[in-house]
Amino acid sequence: MAVKMSAQDLTAFMAVEFPQVNEDFVIEEVRDMAVRVRMPIAYRHLRPGGTVSGPSMFALADCAIYMAVLAMIGPKGLAVTTNCSMDFMRKPEAGKDLIAECRLLKLGRVLAVGDVLIYSDGLATPVARASMTYSIPPR
Amino acid sequence: MAVKMSAQDLTAFMAVEFPQVNEDFVIEEVRDMAVRVRMPIAYRHLRPGGTVSGPSMFALADCAIYMAVLAMIGPKGLAVTTNCSMDFMRKPEAGKDLIAECRLLKLGRVLAVGDVLIYSDGLATPVARASMTYSIPPR
Amino acid sequence: MAVKMSAQDLTAFMAVEFPQVNEDFVIEEVRDMAVRVRMPIAYRHLRPGGTVSGPSMFALADCAIYMAVLAMIGPKGLAVTTNCSMDFMRKPEAGKDLIAECRLLKLGRVLAVGDVLIYSDGLATPVARASMTYSIPPR
Amino acid sequence: MAVKMSAQDLTAFMAVEFPQVNEDFVIEEVRDMAVRVRMPIAYRHLRPGGTVSGPSMFALADCAIYMAVLAMIGPKGLAVTTNCSMDFMRKPEAGKDLIAECRLLKLGRVLAVGDVLIYSDGLATPVARASMTYSIPPR
Repeated sequence: MAVKMSAQDLTAFMAVEFPQVNEDFVIEEVRDMAVRVRMPIAYRHLRPGGTVSGPSMFALADCAIYMAVLAMIGPKGLAVTTNCSMDFMRKPEAGKDLIAECRLLKLGRVLAVGDVLIYSDGLATPVARASMTYSIPPR
Repeated sequence: MAVKMSAQDLTAFMAVEFPQVNEDFVIEEVRDMAVRVRMPIAYRHLRPGGTVSGPSMFALADCAIYMAVLAMIGPKGLAVTTNCSMDFMRKPEAGKDLIAECRLLKLGRVLAVGDVLIYSDGLATPVARASMTYSIPPR
Repeated sequence: MAVKMSAQDLTAFMAVEFPQVNEDFVIEEVRDMAVRVRMPIAYRHLRPGGTVSGPSMFALADCAIYMAVLAMIGPKGLAVTTNCSMDFMRKPEAGKDLIAECRLLKLGRVLAVGDVLIYSDGLATPVARASMTYSIPPR
Repeated sequence: MAVKMSAQDLTAFMAVEFPQVNEDFVIEEVRDMAVRVRMPIAYRHLRPGGTVSGPSMFALADCAIYMAVLAMIGPKGLAVTTNCSMDFMRKPEAGKDLIAECRLLKLGRVLAVGDVLIYSDGLATPVARASMTYSIPPR
């Protein structure tokens, strides 16, 4: 399957469709059924002790899988998350960006499933993992 | 088991420990192994079409289970979410607050497990469900 | 919504469609969007120490939600589990049947979501919880 | 970290500790923080239409992560599954063995987290994914 949207295309799409979260994410790379997304950490993502909040990591995983789906099916704004599971395994490093490495495991007509490993920038062991299902609306 | 913190106690604890999210949540009721938390919806929680974002619902579920744990074990700021699963079942109503009804299913020495149903205020069918595990630090 | 299949109807359906697991489950009660299913424990369900195996509890939860879906939509053999999350919270009592209390949280055209609490017969605190999504084939 | 148990060691351990399921699984390969386990498919694993049952796939994922944990910590029979999430993405091929490719993402003092992709033998796209948490008893 061919990639239908580049990192640049996805960035432009996000700026228009999701202005509220656009600054939170940088789409770094798009490959066949895979994307890498960076979350530059700001004060609003933090919890006491300087760690990144769970909802911020959820948002990153959610964005990454959505980007991976759009990259493959094109700019359809209506796919919705129907299910998510996450494991929070380590405390993110204070002051480091988070990096989400996402791959799509299934891209069906109706449902897409992807998983994500989230890393503190520069470290080899993931801080969290997520898997999510997206429901793709009928065309 | 006796409830160790009231809704008022939990509200005061949140204001000190989690000033970043304090305005997002109103702890409405605390019972034995259960809490109800309201999220007054503001612009920052919304997505195109007026629906509440997934990360906002994650944050609400996470807060509700955390409050339920603290209500039972007292003000220990260090419990951390280790696992979460959520199902997003319906679109929240635009302009309605979200209500999380949380119960603890297990409160062990090391792990606590709770589940949450999230409702649009005033509606009978839940918009989302979540279950989460918290790791409780040794005393 | 009216219940379309009684406990008796579901039992007869299982005997024909799922002869391999039919003896594992007793459908005890069917209500609107809810069922109770008993698993009489046999040697094949056990692990060292007399506890019930994880796969046996998964099978019970899976059966219970499937029965709850069929009770509402009628005897369509083709709904498939697409997602599951489970928390195993306590060791089941040795020698006690397991009881699954299941409710449907969503019954859509395409997806159904249910959750289950599993109890050791006669005890008040659940040993496990599960939530599952079923994909309902187009009619 | 060094691998403490080889595929042969794990096979011998299973034969003694889990005689009920021993025939279901073949431990094919053990690497650092990773194992591959084969499930030779038999009649008892099947559902109508020749597909492998959900509980059988759960059992395979559960076994694979348990083997990966034991491979790293040595023969301690008491680790227990506390949480699982699975996505069932495609129908397994009738008549093909299932292969579980498992990696450990975290091996802490108290909790281990692993994920698994399950394949029909010889096919490139996974039929299911799972992630599980094991609680490791104090030494």
